[in-house]
Amino acid sequence: MKERLFFASDYLEGAHPNIINRMVETNLCHTVGYGEDEISESARERIRKACECPGADVHFLVGGTQTNATVIDAVLKLYQGVIAADSGHIAVHEAGAVEFTGHKVLPLKSELGKIKAEDVKKYLRDFYEDPSYTHMVNPGMVYISQPTEYGTLYSKAELEALSRVCHEYKMPLYVDGARLAYALASPENDVTLADLARLTDVFYIGGTKCGALLGEAVVVPNPELIPHFFTIIKQHGALLAKGRLLGIQFDELFKEDLYLTIGKSAVNYANEIKQALKQDGYRLYFDSPTNQVFFLLEKSKVDDLAKKVEFSNFERYDDEYIVARYCTSWATTREDVDVLLEIIHEFAL
Amino acid sequence: MKERLFFASDYLEGAHPNIINRMVETNLCHTVGYGEDEISESARERIRKACECPGADVHFLVGGTQTNATVIDAVLKLYQGVIAADSGHIAVHEAGAVEFTGHKVLPLKSELGKIKAEDVKKYLRDFYEDPSYTHMVNPGMVYISQPTEYGTLYSKAELEALSRVCHEYKMPLYVDGARLAYALASPENDVTLADLARLTDVFYIGGTKCGALLGEAVVVPNPELIPHFFTIIKQHGALLAKGRLLGIQFDELFKEDLYLTIGKSAVNYANEIKQALKQDGYRLYFDSPTNQVFFLLEKSKVDDLAKKVEFSNFERYDDEYIVARYCTSWATTREDVDVLLEIIHEFAL
Amino acid sequence: MKERLFFASDYLEGAHPNIINRMVETNLCHTVGYGEDEISESARERIRKACECPGADVHFLVGGTQTNATVIDAVLKLYQGVIAADSGHIAVHEAGAVEFTGHKVLPLKSELGKIKAEDVKKYLRDFYEDPSYTHMVNPGMVYISQPTEYGTLYSKAELEALSRVCHEYKMPLYVDGARLAYALASPENDVTLADLARLTDVFYIGGTKCGALLGEAVVVPNPELIPHFFTIIKQHGALLAKGRLLGIQFDELFKEDLYLTIGKSAVNYANEIKQALKQDGYRLYFDSPTNQVFFLLEKSKVDDLAKKVEFSNFERYDDEYIVARYCTSWATTREDVDVLLEIIHEFAL
Amino acid sequence: MKERLFFASDYLEGAHPNIINRMVETNLCHTVGYGEDEISESARERIRKACECPGADVHFLVGGTQTNATVIDAVLKLYQGVIAADSGHIAVHEAGAVEFTGHKVLPLKSELGKIKAEDVKKYLRDFYEDPSYTHMVNPGMVYISQPTEYGTLYSKAELEALSRVCHEYKMPLYVDGARLAYALASPENDVTLADLARLTDVFYIGGTKCGALLGEAVVVPNPELIPHFFTIIKQHGALLAKGRLLGIQFDELFKEDLYLTIGKSAVNYANEIKQALKQDGYRLYFDSPTNQVFFLLEKSKVDDLAKKVEFSNFERYDDEYIVARYCTSWATTREDVDVLLEIIHEFAL
Repeated sequence: MKERLFFASDYLEGAHPNIINRMVETNLCHTVGYGEDEISESARERIRKACECPGADVHFLVGGTQTNATVIDAVLKLYQGVIAADSGHIAVHEAGAVEFTGHKVLPLKSELGKIKAEDVKKYLRDFYEDPSYTHMVNPGMVYISQPTEYGTLYSKAELEALSRVCHEYKMPLYVDGARLAYALASPENDVTLADLARLTDVFYIGGTKCGALLGEAVVVPNPELIPHFFTIIKQHGALLAKGRLLGIQFDELFKEDLYLTIGKSAVNYANEIKQALKQDGYRLYFDSPTNQVFFLLEKSKVDDLAKKVEFSNFERYDDEYIVARYCTSWATTREDVDVLLEIIHEFAL
Repeated sequence: MKERLFFASDYLEGAHPNIINRMVETNLCHTVGYGEDEISESARERIRKACECPGADVHFLVGGTQTNATVIDAVLKLYQGVIAADSGHIAVHEAGAVEFTGHKVLPLKSELGKIKAEDVKKYLRDFYEDPSYTHMVNPGMVYISQPTEYGTLYSKAELEALSRVCHEYKMPLYVDGARLAYALASPENDVTLADLARLTDVFYIGGTKCGALLGEAVVVPNPELIPHFFTIIKQHGALLAKGRLLGIQFDELFKEDLYLTIGKSAVNYANEIKQALKQDGYRLYFDSPTNQVFFLLEKSKVDDLAKKVEFSNFERYDDEYIVARYCTSWATTREDVDVLLEIIHEFAL
Repeated sequence: MKERLFFASDYLEGAHPNIINRMVETNLCHTVGYGEDEISESARERIRKACECPGADVHFLVGGTQTNATVIDAVLKLYQGVIAADSGHIAVHEAGAVEFTGHKVLPLKSELGKIKAEDVKKYLRDFYEDPSYTHMVNPGMVYISQPTEYGTLYSKAELEALSRVCHEYKMPLYVDGARLAYALASPENDVTLADLARLTDVFYIGGTKCGALLGEAVVVPNPELIPHFFTIIKQHGALLAKGRLLGIQFDELFKEDLYLTIGKSAVNYANEIKQALKQDGYRLYFDSPTNQVFFLLEKSKVDDLAKKVEFSNFERYDDEYIVARYCTSWATTREDVDVLLEIIHEFAL
Repeated sequence: MKERLFFASDYLEGAHPNIINRMVETNLCHTVGYGEDEISESARERIRKACECPGADVHFLVGGTQTNATVIDAVLKLYQGVIAADSGHIAVHEAGAVEFTGHKVLPLKSELGKIKAEDVKKYLRDFYEDPSYTHMVNPGMVYISQPTEYGTLYSKAELEALSRVCHEYKMPLYVDGARLAYALASPENDVTLADLARLTDVFYIGGTKCGALLGEAVVVPNPELIPHFFTIIKQHGALLAKGRLLGIQFDELFKEDLYLTIGKSAVNYANEIKQALKQDGYRLYFDSPTNQVFFLLEKSKVDDLAKKVEFSNFERYDDEYIVARYCTSWATTREDVDVLLEIIHEFAL
C-alpha cells in the first residue's frame, strides 16, 4: 500500500494494539452471539464502573450514524423531533438517517458547534406559546456532541444548564460522544464520564474514532428510558452477530482507564500543529481545544497541499479561502507530525 | 472464558486466520474511510472476477439484516413489497427491519425454505387478475436465500426458472447469501457465483457466517439497478467508517478462492453428525445438504442436552418434540465433532 | 349521468338526507377549523352517550385506510406489529398503509374473516416461548373488524374472549367498524356500542359506508392510550381543515339513534337477495348475516351479468367460478332490489 | 350556533353554493368509487383545459398536508430531500408530515415566504462542491407556494428562473397552491394555470381554502413523473372512497372559470381592510397582495380584540407586538367587512 501522510480524519488506522492482541488471542474461542457473551458483559461492567452508574444499560452498536438514528428513534415519541445544533452531525452529515426514521431534526442556531441552554429554553418557550404548536413537530429530545463537530467542549456548567432546561420540559438529553476520548483528554475539559451519566439521559462513548476498530457504546443511565432496546437495535439493522467483537473493543478500552488517556497524545500533537500554523502566518479558523485544527487555506493552494498530505476540506469560508482541517488521533506518531510541521512551514513561505 | 461445546450457530468464533493476520499486518497503515481505500478496491476486484462479472458494483455492509433491509429498500419502489418464503429470514427473524423501511414482506408458501417459480408465477398472475390489485401492495421483487434458512439449495434449473418468471414480470430477483460458502461447498450444489451474477439482479455474499469477523458483500451485476447506493447505505446507518476492515475480510476470503472451499469441512462434519444421529435412532427433521443438521428432540431432554452442548432450539415440532439444530462452521474442529458424536450416542440410549 | 343498477359496494351514493340538509342549512355559518367547532363537539358528545362512555376521546378522520394506519401507528410501540386476520382489510386491501408507517401486520389464520381468541392466545404463547422472540416482531395489538370483510359478526362472547386474551398480554384490542351500522342492524348481532367501549381499547364507527359522505369516528375509551393524538393525526395527513364537515355527519347519524337503525333496510334487502339466489339455484359462498351477499358465479357469466348490474368480483373461487358479491346499503331502494331479483332470476335460467 | 365575526382563516365556511347545489342534486345517484366516476372525469377534463395541458394527470386528494406529503414522497427518490422556504408550510406547520415519510425538508432562507432562483442555484452549487456531499441529503425537488404563506406572489419571471435552475439540475419543481384562487384573482398576479403547467412538474390547485368543502387537485403535466400514483395515494391514506365528492367540488369550481374569479371579492376586501388599518394608524407587517392582511398588534390588546373578532395570532414580532392576521375568503360578506372596519377604527383610538 502506497504510504502518504494522513491528517484527514481520526479513523484512518486499525485499532489500539491491546485490542488487536485480544482479538488474536480470543479468535478461536466460542461465544454466543449478539453481545450476550462474557467479554461483552465484562466490557459493560467496566463502563458502568467508569461512569459510576452501576444500574446503567450499556449497548454496543457499530457506527455513529447508526447509533444516533437508533437511539433517537427509540427515545422519541412518534410525533416528536430532536433539537440539535444546526451544524450538528445528525443535521448535516448523516444523509438524513434521522429523518429516515420519520423524525425531524429541529435545527438551533449554534456557535462553533455548541448550543446554549438559554436558546433551548427560548425555543421551548416560544414553541409552547405558539397558538398553532399542535400543528408543529413537538420537540422531544435535545442532541449535543461532546466534543462537537468543531472539537469544542461543553463545560460542566454548560452541561448542567442544558440538563436543567431539558428536565424542566421533561425532555431527554442525548450526547453524541463519537470523539469523547479527545474531550476527556483535553486540558480544558471538566466533564467526566460520571458527569455525563448524571446529567444526561443517554449518551454514547465513541469507539471508532478513539482507538477501536469499530463500535460505539450506548449508555442509558436509567434503563426504563428505552424498553425493548435489543429488538429495536435489531430492527434498525444495528445488531452485530459476533457481538463479542464489540465487547473486545470496549473491554480493552476500559481496562486500566485506557479510554481516559488514549486521546492525550492526539490533543498534544494538535496543539503543536496549531502553534506551528500560527507561527507560520496561517489564520486559525478558531482555537479548537481537542484533536482537530481548523485553519484558512487559499483555494489556490488546496491541490498542491493535497499532494503532500491528506487533510479535510472542511467547509467553504469565502470566495478565496476554505476552512481546512488537520485531525490527529490516538495513532498519530511523532514522525508524522514532524513531517507535517515541515510541510506547514514550506507552504507558508 | 469457560469453554463449552458450541454447535448452536456458525458465528461463534472470530475470523479465518488469514484475515486476522492481515488485520495485524495492516493495523497501523493509514487508509481513507468508507470503503474507498485500496484494500477494499482489491476485494471488490477479486469478487468481480470470482463472479465473472467485471462491470458489477460491489458494496460491503456489516450484517445480514442490515444488508437485506438496505438492499430491499433501495431496489423497491415506494408502493412495492417483496415476495419471500413465509419462512424467509426477512419474514420471520429480522424484527420487521424491512417493514421498518415502509415495505411489506409478501409471504409465499414454501417448503423447507424454498419457493417455486410456478408459485411465484401464480401469485403474480392472480395479483394482476384481481380487480382490486391497485389497492394492494404491488410485488416489486423476489427474495430467496441460498442456502435457505433450512440449509436447502436451489438448483441451477430452479434458479433459472425463478429468474425467468421475475424478469417476465420485470421484477428484480435478490439472493440472500448469508451462508453462501456452505452452498458453494456442498456436493449437491450446481450454482456458481457466476450463475448468481448471471441469473439474479442483486445478491450478497455472506461473510459473517463464512469465515469473516463481520461483513456482507453486495453484488449488483448491473449497477444501474441502484443509483446513489453509497448515500442510501449511509442513510440506513450501514456505512462503516473504517471500511478497509470489511475490505480485508473479503480480500482474504477471495484470495486463492478461499471462499469457495472454506465451507467444505463444515459440510463434511455436518454429514458425519447426521449419520451419527440416524444410527443412534434420532429422527432427522429432514436431510439438509449444507452445514445445518435438524433433528427431533424430546422436550424433556432439552435441558439435559443443553448442559452438554450449545445447540439451537430451532422451532416447535409438536407437543412432545422440538426441532433442534446442530450447526457446523468453517471453524469446527475434529475434536469438537468427536465430543459431539459421543454426546449424541450417550443421549440416544 | 347514465343510470345503471349498482350493487357493487355500500359507498355508491352521497349521504343520508338529514346530513345533506344539515350541510345546506349550515353552509355559510362560520366555525373554527380542525374539529374544534361546536357541531363536532356536539357529535362527540352524542357518540360518548351512545357508547355509554362519558370519558372517551372521539376523533373524526376521513377514511378507513387512513384511520387504520393512523390509529395503529399511534398505539403501537416502535418495535411492535399488529395481529390481524389474514383476510383483514389492513392485511390485504390497504396498499400496505400500515407497513408504510413501519409496522408489520402479523397475519393470523381466519375463518370467514374472523379470528379466534384461542388462536390469538396460542400465537402469543408460542411467540414468547420461541427462544429467538427478541429477534422477531413483537405483537403489540390485535385488529379485528365488526362486521368483518365477509360481513360476519363477532358475538359478545367471542369479543369478551378476545378482550380477555388481549388484556392478559397487555395488548390493546382495536375494532375496525367501517360497516358497523350493518352489524348493529343485524338480527344476529348481540354486541352494542357500549360493549365495544367496554371490551376494546379503541374502535372506529364507520361513516363512509353507513350513511355519511365521508368520515370515521375513532373512539378511545381511555384517552391515556393515545396522548397527542391531534398532532399525530395532522402528521399522518389525516386532519380535515373544515372539521365541522365531519362533525355534521356524525351529529346527524347519532341524532335519535339514526346510526343504530340506518342499516336495517340494507340487511333486510340482503336477506331477500340471498333467498332469491338460493331459490334460483345459485350456490351461496356462505350465509352472511349483514349487508353483503356472497355467491358463486361462473366466470363465463361475469361479463354478461356486469352489463346488467354492477357487482363486486370479490375473489377467485376455482378455475370455473368466482366469488361474486352483491352489497346493499342504507340507500338501497325497493325498486333497485326488485330489478335485481329479476336479473337474478333471468340469469339463473 | 353562536355567531361571531370570523376573520381568522379562509376555511371557516362550507362551500360555494354551486357545489352545495350539485351535491344535493346528485346525492342519490350511484357512482363507482375512488374517483373513477363520470363527475370526477369531467372535473379532470375541465382542469386539463384550464391548464392548457391535455395530457396531464389530475388526482383529487382531501387536504393540503396530505397532498404535500403524498406528492413529495411519490416524487423524491429514497435518498433525497425537498428544498423549501424556511417559512414554508411543509417546513413549519405540517407536524413533520414530510419527515414522517422519511424525507428531510431542506430549509432555504426566504423573504416573506419566497425563495430566489439564485439562492437555489447557490445551494445546489455549494452542495455538489462539498467534498462530503454523498454523506448529505441529496436535494431532489423544490417546493414553493403560490401564493406563499404570507400571501406573496411569485411573478412569471421569478417562476421561470426557478424552473430553469430546477431543470438544469434535473430536479422537479412543485407548487403548493392551497390558496391559488387568491393568487389568480390578485391584480398583481401574472402567472396563469397554463404557466404553472408549463413551468412546473407538479402542482396542486387548492380547493379547501378556495370555495370547496374539501379537496385539492394535483396536476402532473407529464404523468410519467409519478407512475402508480393511485396505489401511492391509497398507501398514504389519501384515497377518498366516495371520490365523486371531490369530483363535484372541482367540476363546479372549473365550470365557467369560477375558480379564476372566486377569489376576487376576497382580495378586494383584504385591500379595504389594509387601507383602513393604515388610516387608523396600525403598522402593516408588510403589504400582502392577496387575501391575507398582516399587521402589528400590541400584545396587551390581543385578548380584547379576540372578544370582538376571531383573527389569527400569526407569529411573534417582538416583546411588545405580535403579527396578527385578518384573512378574507370567497365567502366574506360586505356586512362582515363593515363590522370589521368599525372594530378596527374603534380599537385604534
